[in-house]
This record gives sequence, structure tokens and C-alpha cells, in this order.
Amino acid sequence: MGGYDNNKPSLSPANNSKTTDSVLNLEFGDPTMYGEYWRQHGDKGTVVISGCDSMSYFTDMGNLCWFLEPELANSIKRLHCIVGNAVTEDRHIVVGSGSTQLYNALLYAFSSPDEPEPISVVCAAPYYSAYADVTDCVRSGLYKWAGDAYTFEKDGPYIEVVTTPNNPDGSIREAVVNRSHGKVIHDLAYYWPQHTPITHPADYDNMLFTFSKTTGHAGSRIGWAFVKDKEVARKMIEFIMINSIGVSKESQLRAAKIFEAVCDSCQNSGSENFFEYGQRLMGGRWEKLRQVLKNSEILSLPEYPLVYCNFSGKIMETKPAFAWLECNDSDCASFLMEHKIKGRGGRRFGVDSKYARFSLVGEEKEFDNFLERLSGIHGKKHHIKIHADRQ
Amino acid sequence: MGGYDNNKPSLSPANNSKTTDSVLNLEFGDPTMYGEYWRQHGDKGTVVISGCDSMSYFTDMGNLCWFLEPELANSIKRLHCIVGNAVTEDRHIVVGSGSTQLYNALLYAFSSPDEPEPISVVCAAPYYSAYADVTDCVRSGLYKWAGDAYTFEKDGPYIEVVTTPNNPDGSIREAVVNRSHGKVIHDLAYYWPQHTPITHPADYDNMLFTFSKTTGHAGSRIGWAFVKDKEVARKMIEFIMINSIGVSKESQLRAAKIFEAVCDSCQNSGSENFFEYGQRLMGGRWEKLRQVLKNSEILSLPEYPLVYCNFSGKIMETKPAFAWLECNDSDCASFLMEHKIKGRGGRRFGVDSKYARFSLVGEEKEFDNFLERLSGIHGKKHHIKIHADRQ
Repeated sequence: MGGYDNNKPSLSPANNSKTTDSVLNLEFGDPTMYGEYWRQHGDKGTVVISGCDSMSYFTDMGNLCWFLEPELANSIKRLHCIVGNAVTEDRHIVVGSGSTQLYNALLYAFSSPDEPEPISVVCAAPYYSAYADVTDCVRSGLYKWAGDAYTFEKDGPYIEVVTTPNNPDGSIREAVVNRSHGKVIHDLAYYWPQHTPITHPADYDNMLFTFSKTTGHAGSRIGWAFVKDKEVARKMIEFIMINSIGVSKESQLRAAKIFEAVCDSCQNSGSENFFEYGQRLMGGRWEKLRQVLKNSEILSLPEYPLVYCNFSGKIMETKPAFAWLECNDSDCASFLMEHKIKGRGGRRFGVDSKYARFSLVGEEKEFDNFLERLSGIHGKKHHIKIHADRQ
Repeated sequence: MGGYDNNKPSLSPANNSKTTDSVLNLEFGDPTMYGEYWRQHGDKGTVVISGCDSMSYFTDMGNLCWFLEPELANSIKRLHCIVGNAVTEDRHIVVGSGSTQLYNALLYAFSSPDEPEPISVVCAAPYYSAYADVTDCVRSGLYKWAGDAYTFEKDGPYIEVVTTPNNPDGSIREAVVNRSHGKVIHDLAYYWPQHTPITHPADYDNMLFTFSKTTGHAGSRIGWAFVKDKEVARKMIEFIMINSIGVSKESQLRAAKIFEAVCDSCQNSGSENFFEYGQRLMGGRWEKLRQVLKNSEILSLPEYPLVYCNFSGKIMETKPAFAWLECNDSDCASFLMEHKIKGRGGRRFGVDSKYARFSLVGEEKEFDNFLERLSGIHGKKHHIKIHADRQ
């Protein structure tokens, strides 16, 4: 699942490139920063769909996931093979309308109407705020959000979500409950070279990935899951069948084409490697961001370890899609909102309001605007502080 | 919502064009009969999507439904204006991943976590079997399937689904509960000229339509709702945001292009009018079907009134997407399964098993195969009957 969250986007991120006095909305992780790459290389990812293509509900009746386009399955496997971030053998691929639907499908697969009460769903705080919203959306009698995995003490079956690298804070994580009767969902939305060193092919029972965080195509609503257990995959497919009778064929065909273009860019020296492009962009942004905040006495960023990346063949740092800011004044989100920067406060992620999350994956102008406003805060606060000292 | 239902499609409809002894699967309403039209006219509906198009989650921040492509909204309005089957003014358009998601979104919009118990959802039997599956999928505490509207007697708030023309039986319907505190959803998936005379522009509070039944593009998973009340539309959008963060942009762009092609075909005398094509096809199939069954003492079809169609300018009969067969032997589905024709039994639709539903919207060969097998049954039974008389 992604960096988008489920509040009404009342302040349009579309206004973010305007250097006006309007609020800069960095609440949503809309990955528009890849737009420039695809404007330059878009023809390699162009799809042409005729009026008579892919009209049926059914795609591949030989596959358990009968609505999965074989081209998409093949391109997903090729991509993970090149990047080395996930084991793809001996597991079922299930496609969903974004990884959000797959998350929901996994909750459905792991729960049972025969249980006396809903199964608890937990994630270590700070956790991606949308998990709670999705889990409790229709007050399911099958599953129920139970908050922070660190403080979860209830006996019996549970589901733990492990987001690694984590949204909001970019940390590398493992399951924390580790009791019997637990099911674990690994949300690997950000386990791609532009965001974190690839240290090993992930090899978990239930892994989620999403098109939006991989290449920036958030509008397509495509996610995929690797699922080891056939019965779990079957129940996920049942959930998707009941709730949306499959997944857009057009989006699947486009994702397949885009992934092939990305794979080609990694393998042909004449092309601009997509992930190296992403690494440069994110690396540059993090460098500038740390520079702006390095002398701040108010705001600080997490530190990330330097780790060898198998994909890149060099030592690298995690470069998360979000700045997870800590404010030594209380309530980071409110403080930055005073400076017309809108983020999402720590409470939504299950932690203290002195933290807040701000998107770093928007257009270049949006990011520059963020830096400019942060610089202003630093100066102003510094001034206030000096002024206070004099009094 | 459509004619597809939520059982595992274990017997592939893809095998239906083979005139072998394998089971002919007519359980699902996969509208592949339009394939031939789009193979002939597909270039008019071709979409080209570049790698850099429609990447953002956000489409139209000025619209309440911020993930709706304006091109799709415009083409939907143009289409309904030409066909005359729905009032489009002064209501919100909400797009969904198929009308199934919109149905779910309406249940969410009409229910409240503050109510002491889940709101009852009813539909007059025979009702579309998927409503029950979707409503109770995750055992929501907000809403609950309560079966046949004719026998619904509980006091308090309720939601009634009115499917007109009805799936499975093609009848024209109105709400039957008609009490205060009721919300009504009109599922108008089949209110198109190829299936029924267009007698008036539908003007209800909450109307559902779907791409799959309009033009045959079931794989795209696009539905749309016309919603009068802004707060209802807002809650539907919230539901779609939480559960899939919008709807595939590629599918929306393609639906827009296909609808424009259909509109052009209705307005340019040089083109083959899509709906007239559909009327001829469905008309021909119903004529052949009635011919095959006219002397049957075992199987019978519903009769439909002749009504003036505003769109066509002539008197017409309803030509449903399904044959709703009544069998004077008990259990219609089991009886036809003995003859290697798989349909869906009446019990799933809330009525007696002497009824069963069979798709009429598949490929030509599939339909011919159906007729051939039906003819065989008639002959065989007739033979058996004569034989019995002689004994």
C-alpha cells in the first residue's frame, strides 16, 4: 500500500507548483516526480488498446487468478528478477485494484465467519495511517483494527502488517508480535532501489507491491501480491471477484508495458536506467533537505544506516518518499501549518504529535517550494530565539 | 451491476465455442457477443496512452468526484442524452471499479456506525444473486442482506435495490417496500435499447449503470452512478477513496473513447448504429430461442409486453441478456446440467429451483450450441414421452 491516505484531499496538490502564499499540500504521497522521466521516455511505455481488445471478464482460465493478464505476470517476474527485491518462484501472483484492495483481500483470506470475534489487525507504530481506515471502513465482523503491534497483548489469532521500508518513517522492519496463530502481511511498497538499498530478495508468505510506488503510475490502481499458500490466494481472488469482478485489463496491460520499459532501461546501456534516475532524484532531494535542516534547532529528520545495495553495487542510504519530521515544539503538523506547509500529524500514525509526515515525491517545483518554506521557518525561529535570549 | 456472479468460474466459458461434449457454461453474463461489432469498428474506439499520461491519483480537484476523468463524465452525459434513458442534469456522477463497487459505496453511504444494528438490504425476488454476496462479504456491522423485498416486514431504516429491467428475469420493476426511512438504489445496468424499450429518461435519486452491459467491455471494470444528494455522493467517494484510492484512469479514458464512438455511430448515418446492431443480434437470438422452445412441454420462457421505444421510434419487446427458464420438472438447473448446459438455479435468486438463468450474450457459436442442445432435450423428452405412452 502506498503513501496516499484517506482524508478528503480538500487542498489540491495540483496547486503545489505555484509559488504563491497558498498552503503547500504535502499530505499525500502522489509520486508525480517521475513525470519528467516518463515525458522523456513515454513512447517506450505507450500502449495502444483497440476497441475490441480485452472485453471479457475472463483472462486466463488456466490460472488461479483468472483475471490476471499473463503479460503483467511475466513483466512483474522479470522486474523482480532484475531488481532482486523479491523471490517470485513457487507462489501465486494476485493482482488488485491497487495494493489497498489486496490488503483488504488478505484480511478476508485470514479471517473466518466461524470465529467468535473479529481477528485483530496490528502494525508497529508509527504505522501507515490508511491501514486503520481500510480495516474498519465497514465495521467488519471478520477483522478489526487493534493498533500498535508493540502494545498488542491479546491472545489468539491476529494479523500483523509489516511495512518495510516503513511508511511514514523509512525504517527497515521485522514482525514484532511473533506469536503462534499470527498471520503476517509484508507491505513492500517502497522496497525499490530509488528508496532503499536492496539487501536481499524478500521471501515472505504474503508480500504486497504497488505500481504507484514502483514507477509513479498512481492513477492506474494496480497492485500485486505474492502469496505462498494456495488457499490464501484463492480466498483473495474470491474477495476481488465479489467486490469488483476482477481488475481493469487496461491498467494491467499498461503496467506490463511500463515494467518492460523499466526492465529494458536497466538492461540496455543506451537507455537511462529508471531506478538510477530515481536514486539521483531522491538522493538530491534528501541532500538538499538535510542541508536546509542541518542547523535547525526545531526540526529534525531520522538518520538512516549506510548499507550495501545489491542492485546498485554500492553502499547507499535509505531515501524515503516522506520526510518524517520531529519538532521539538509540540505538534509538528500544526507548527508547519502555521508556515503554510500541510503534512499529516503523528497521531494518525499511532505516535506523538511532535512527529509529522511530508511528501517528497511531488513535482520539482513543489519540492523546491517546500525547501524554501522550511528555510524561512529556520530563519524566523532562529531570529525569535535570539530575540528571546536578548530579553 | 451486471450479470456476472460470484462463484468460482470453474468451468471456463472460454470453452463454450467448442461444439464438443463438454459442459456449455452459461452461468456468467460475459457479454462477448459485442466482440464482432468492435472487431469491425474497433479503430474508432482505439485509445493510445503514453507512458507519462494520467500518472497522478488526482484528476479533477474541482469536482467532488476528484478521480473522475472529465472526458468520461462528458461522454456519459452525451450517451444518455442520445439514448434518452436517464436524466443527467443536477446530479453528481460517481465512477467506480464496476457498478459492484458503486453498489457497495451506496450501502456505505446509506448506513451509519451510530445505528444500533446493521441496516437491512432487500430486493424483490427473483433478485440478482450477487447482491447478497456483496452485501454480506465481510459481515459488515453497517448493513446486512435481508432477502426478498416482498416479504420484508421489519420496521425502521432499510435499503431497497430495484433492478430494472431485472436480472435474472428481464421484467420492468418498481420499488415494492415503499415505507418511510427507506433508501432506494436503482440498478439500471440493462436499461439500454438492445435489451429493452426506452420508455422514459430514468429520474431516480440513485442510479447505477455499467460499461460492461452498455457496450460489452466487461474487462474494464467501469461503472457510474448518478446521485442527487451531495452528501450521499461524498460518502460514496470516501468509500472508493478508502478501498481503492480512485478508479483506473486507463479504463476511464477507454470508456470515454468507446462511448464517443457509440454516440457517433448513433448520429452519423454512415456508421453502423451500435444499439441497432445490438437490437438485431438480441432480437435474432430471442426469436430463435422462442422457436426452439415453442412446442416444449418441459421448458418455458417469460412473455414480455410490446412497448413503444422512444430511442428506436417503434414498438418493441424486451430482449433480456438472460433466458429465465421455467421447468415443469423440478430443478431446472439440475435438469439442464444433465444435458450439459450449466446455468444458475432459482434458489440463488431467492425463488424456486424450477427456475434457472442462462446467458444469451456470449459468442455466436456459444449461443448456437445452446440452441442445439435445447433442441436435443425437446426431442429426447418428446421421444421418452411417446415411448412412455406406448407402454
